[in-house]
Amino acid sequence: MNYENVKQQMIEFLKNETSKIGINRVTIGLSGGLDSAVVAVLAKEVFKDNMSVVLMPSYLSSKESIIDAKELCEKFNISYEVVDISPMVKGYFDNIEDKTALRIGNFSARMRMSVLYDISARDNSLVVGTSNKSEILLGYGTLYGDTACAINPIGQIYKSDLFEFAKYIGVTDAIINKKPSADLWEGQSDEEELGFSYKQMDSVLKLMIDQNLTKKELLEKNIDEKLIDMLDHCVKSNLFKGKLPTIANINFNY
Amino acid sequence: MNYENVKQQMIEFLKNETSKIGINRVTIGLSGGLDSAVVAVLAKEVFKDNMSVVLMPSYLSSKESIIDAKELCEKFNISYEVVDISPMVKGYFDNIEDKTALRIGNFSARMRMSVLYDISARDNSLVVGTSNKSEILLGYGTLYGDTACAINPIGQIYKSDLFEFAKYIGVTDAIINKKPSADLWEGQSDEEELGFSYKQMDSVLKLMIDQNLTKKELLEKNIDEKLIDMLDHCVKSNLFKGKLPTIANINFNY
Repeated sequence: MNYENVKQQMIEFLKNETSKIGINRVTIGLSGGLDSAVVAVLAKEVFKDNMSVVLMPSYLSSKESIIDAKELCEKFNISYEVVDISPMVKGYFDNIEDKTALRIGNFSARMRMSVLYDISARDNSLVVGTSNKSEILLGYGTLYGDTACAINPIGQIYKSDLFEFAKYIGVTDAIINKKPSADLWEGQSDEEELGFSYKQMDSVLKLMIDQNLTKKELLEKNIDEKLIDMLDHCVKSNLFKGKLPTIANINFNY
Repeated sequence: MNYENVKQQMIEFLKNETSKIGINRVTIGLSGGLDSAVVAVLAKEVFKDNMSVVLMPSYLSSKESIIDAKELCEKFNISYEVVDISPMVKGYFDNIEDKTALRIGNFSARMRMSVLYDISARDNSLVVGTSNKSEILLGYGTLYGDTACAINPIGQIYKSDLFEFAKYIGVTDAIINKKPSADLWEGQSDEEELGFSYKQMDSVLKLMIDQNLTKKELLEKNIDEKLIDMLDHCVKSNLFKGKLPTIANINFNY
């Protein structure tokens, strides 16, 4: 991958899409993770101070997340505001007994989306998405939560490639060196949940999705059948997350 | 419109889509307004008690809304639960000074979506949408709020037609006779905000959208130019609400 060229294409994308829509300001949720760090650094080059960056910790997210996000903002001279989503999350779950970490996690992702969209309306700006290609393909995101946005510059980049790209554009070490996590609860790890590293998963996704190889062809390359089946299952069972609602097509000619 | 036939098509749609997905239970937010009442009554015919109906009042919504929603549930023997979204809305806006009714309204719609999706996950069910064709075309809804759903049986029906259909299927008078309202704040009226009645708007939308008439042709039919321009502006400026996020298409062959 030619990093400089990819970077220029992303910058062009951000410029073109915002100018097409006629709104020259963006809103970005900065989690302290890799994806949103990359997007914020790219956006800073394009929009300078014309961006609303929001840090949205909760009582469940890791303490390092906000520290790392702030360090990135300092390095790149990015202004930010902090909105703690805990009151909203607790406001809902306090009266609910059978809550699970997954329910709270998905709800938290939707609270963050709601805050971002409110701020984007307040500031007349566009929400920029931060989902990478691995996440999108695997459906490893919350529908109407972190996947919700107007435009997304990194949705075609696999997570393992994004690590290299992040180094190239100068994302801080603390963010580059941490384990990928949706950070919906303390200690959550993408790779532990999925059972494989992004390097492993991405190398197979590239063959499976971009090159359209069949299971038989993948097995011939000595790829772990468990990995193939897991990826295939994730991709297929989460396809709905990339689709618009299905609206009944009514025939009135009776 | 052949009401019985349209009803049967909607029922078939609900049956087919849920069975395709393999989830035979639905979640519906019942607001006390016409659209969700129609959807709930249709769903009751298909799913019997296999549905999760949620009433989500807030400190800002009209007091009649919840009364009318409960009356409908009694008439059709629909079980429901009540989730007050006020703690979440206040949890966010209490510290914000420059809030507006519109910001609070859109945020509230997203809180309702978040509650519905949480309940749909809790109950392993599908969120059924309740946006009508007029709302969808005009973009008179909150992105990632009331427009968010898995399947929508009434999205092809204009609001003014839905009134007649609602009478046919037995929706209660209190709901049929009230002024259409997003109910995002007390006394809100769709038709006052938009400046025209749904009857007026729908009759022109049918010509403009379904029959593809030009502005010139509409003017020749003696249609109010202000109405034409308003509809045209709404439809065009809200097209983005019916689209998926735009993802940068990166060319790696450099």
